[in-house]
Amino acid sequence: MHMNKPLNIAIAGLGTVGGGTFKILQENAGLLEARCGRAIHIVAVSARDKNKKRAINIAEVKWVDSPADLLTLPDVDVIVELIGGSEGVAKLLVEEAFKAGKHVVTANKALIAHHGLSLAKLAEAKGAAFGYEAAVAGGIPVIKTLREGLTANRFHAITGILNGTCNFILTSMMESGQDFATALAQAQHIGYAEADPSFDIDGIDTAHKLTILTSLAYGCPPDIHAVKIEGIRHITARDIVFADKLGYVIKLLGISTRTEQGILQRVHPCMVSKLSTIGRVAGAYNGIIIEGSSVGRLTLEGQGAGEGPTASSVISDIADIARGIICKPFGIPVAAIADIPRVPIDTLRTSYYVRLAVIDKPGVLASITAIFSEENISLREFQQYPQGNDQPVQVVLITHETLEFAMLKALESVSKLNSVLEPAHMIRIEAL
Amino acid sequence: MHMNKPLNIAIAGLGTVGGGTFKILQENAGLLEARCGRAIHIVAVSARDKNKKRAINIAEVKWVDSPADLLTLPDVDVIVELIGGSEGVAKLLVEEAFKAGKHVVTANKALIAHHGLSLAKLAEAKGAAFGYEAAVAGGIPVIKTLREGLTANRFHAITGILNGTCNFILTSMMESGQDFATALAQAQHIGYAEADPSFDIDGIDTAHKLTILTSLAYGCPPDIHAVKIEGIRHITARDIVFADKLGYVIKLLGISTRTEQGILQRVHPCMVSKLSTIGRVAGAYNGIIIEGSSVGRLTLEGQGAGEGPTASSVISDIADIARGIICKPFGIPVAAIADIPRVPIDTLRTSYYVRLAVIDKPGVLASITAIFSEENISLREFQQYPQGNDQPVQVVLITHETLEFAMLKALESVSKLNSVLEPAHMIRIEAL
Repeated sequence: MHMNKPLNIAIAGLGTVGGGTFKILQENAGLLEARCGRAIHIVAVSARDKNKKRAINIAEVKWVDSPADLLTLPDVDVIVELIGGSEGVAKLLVEEAFKAGKHVVTANKALIAHHGLSLAKLAEAKGAAFGYEAAVAGGIPVIKTLREGLTANRFHAITGILNGTCNFILTSMMESGQDFATALAQAQHIGYAEADPSFDIDGIDTAHKLTILTSLAYGCPPDIHAVKIEGIRHITARDIVFADKLGYVIKLLGISTRTEQGILQRVHPCMVSKLSTIGRVAGAYNGIIIEGSSVGRLTLEGQGAGEGPTASSVISDIADIARGIICKPFGIPVAAIADIPRVPIDTLRTSYYVRLAVIDKPGVLASITAIFSEENISLREFQQYPQGNDQPVQVVLITHETLEFAMLKALESVSKLNSVLEPAHMIRIEAL
Repeated sequence: MHMNKPLNIAIAGLGTVGGGTFKILQENAGLLEARCGRAIHIVAVSARDKNKKRAINIAEVKWVDSPADLLTLPDVDVIVELIGGSEGVAKLLVEEAFKAGKHVVTANKALIAHHGLSLAKLAEAKGAAFGYEAAVAGGIPVIKTLREGLTANRFHAITGILNGTCNFILTSMMESGQDFATALAQAQHIGYAEADPSFDIDGIDTAHKLTILTSLAYGCPPDIHAVKIEGIRHITARDIVFADKLGYVIKLLGISTRTEQGILQRVHPCMVSKLSTIGRVAGAYNGIIIEGSSVGRLTLEGQGAGEGPTASSVISDIADIARGIICKPFGIPVAAIADIPRVPIDTLRTSYYVRLAVIDKPGVLASITAIFSEENISLREFQQYPQGNDQPVQVVLITHETLEFAMLKALESVSKLNSVLEPAHMIRIEAL
């Protein structure tokens, strides 16, 4: 097994994931050689600052200042793009790598969500591998599972906790009773949330990942604009307490469903049963439920971010290339990737949690329930929580399954009532 | 994509899994062709009775009476062995298939547990694929996950609910309060347990699967004789009630751990937290926790048996061959598979549940606790449950973490006490 030519790779970007990839490739070199039937050699690296203090020793590896220069080296088989960002340097590097006939491995979800189809075309034209296991759910091998492990299946639904930052914040809020701002600040303090957290907490990162899973599952082009996106900024400590009383926890989910009408992709906070598998995915963990025609329901749970788990996925992609495992980037040839009608969220049918702050006077509840009744929305539960001290009464409604379109109309009308003091707080409930 | 030569397969065995494989290959032929870049053709089948009434139409496919005759057909690329059994027809067919240069896909765990290494040698000699995803955990792609999805990792532990029949029986006992015999009879009645259930309930099936996962994870030969096996026949409704009071459920687990000392493989009932992910895997579902050096803890949960899930795995293996994905059967070359020292279960350190039926008289408890104290076993909890009507008192002890060797000595001594009326009931506790 030592006779085979090594696989030569070049790494662009030596941040958390790049550094971890470098380190693990060195530590487990012998194991990887046995498993792949050939050695994996890091021939060159590129990052912003050559002299930055690092936990890895890059002295024995060629350094280039510009990532583009990695492409001019004579014997690089694989470009490992760990720079990030959907445009600019990362995009150019990946495009040029494919044009030069190199394989590419990346953790860049934004890049694939925005340019996945055109990049897949470039890869396919050269028979190159385009590995992006690390782009979705950290160490969980969900890309391989969808693309290879479940080839026999038509998929109906993908549901996931895909952003560890949001799950960490929501878990902290639940465990400590903190409000959103405090939990966010704490997550920033310990490095689980970035200084500008909007990519995570506004649901954009989850949406990027969801589009990738959607493309793989259903064979359509990734389309970030087709995703209904709602983040977690508006989740209050009060909603979490009320959810708990009702047997629910609040999770930011990415959900992609396929029916005869088409595909619905949505990212928003959901109430799910505390006892469900997904409800018990806590802290920075990710969890994904795949529903397929033969396999039924398959759930994967693991660490969604961090050096080790993400590097694990990057290296698995590199190892696949070393072993000659090269799949079509989205599981089918680009020519077979077809637009599938998109279904608007108005057509969603689910049950809803609605919280209203109301003036405590006779007739208020009657006027609220009348509005729901007008929209043919039937209520499953109804609770009043007086807050004392002339504070508004908190009213919590749980509906039976109903149409989102009707719900939005009802909420608009209810929020206009004089006795309703704030816009209605609505959280969708998922039966998982 | 229609230009590539189809992959021709022959199926031996048309029971639940064989029939399901046949059906899904036909139903999803177009999808599979798009995903694999070539068609998958069933060219021949063999089963015990040609004229048996089946839900599938085999009229257009060549029939042979003897599975061995599948090997004489001119253009079969893959033999799909779904006959079962570790010896006899199945073994011969797989051996001869490899010798004839065919790829093999199978769901036969017993065959691999007993003859995995020699079969892998035959496969490797011809560069043939040996796919056995369906042999472990039904539809859960755990083989692919270990072999390809987590290539970067050294593994420390694999823990799994690997037998749906046992999990179904234990879940029924918990939900209904039934005793073991009733729950087993019910499982047999609805087809979840076989007329002779010993393979499942005595832990042998779980042990077969555990040896396969062990070999893949650590690179050692499968060795069924190295597994400490204990089934679930002795689990009583009373133990399940007491477990519940303590916050536990009882699951039959297969656990394979690797330390510097070596590998410990064991199959036995365990108490695990009701709130743990594995504790919540109910009914006929399977669940597997993989612990790896980079990925940390990864959990997979899904249907562990049945037509659809098992056929899903069989077909994924076939599809891999169609796409040219051919791995070494155990992830590394046979020459690199090495014996690793086996650690005896005596050296296990865990905490224990012990239930004793004792005569209610002064001094009994003192003599019991004295024995545990002599063996340096410290107790974490201690409960007495008087049963009234001159029935023996049930005493439940939970120990702190202790050595199995000491525990077995203590149990032997305790069971000899005149005031202790039955041999001690011991169940290991796993912190998961």
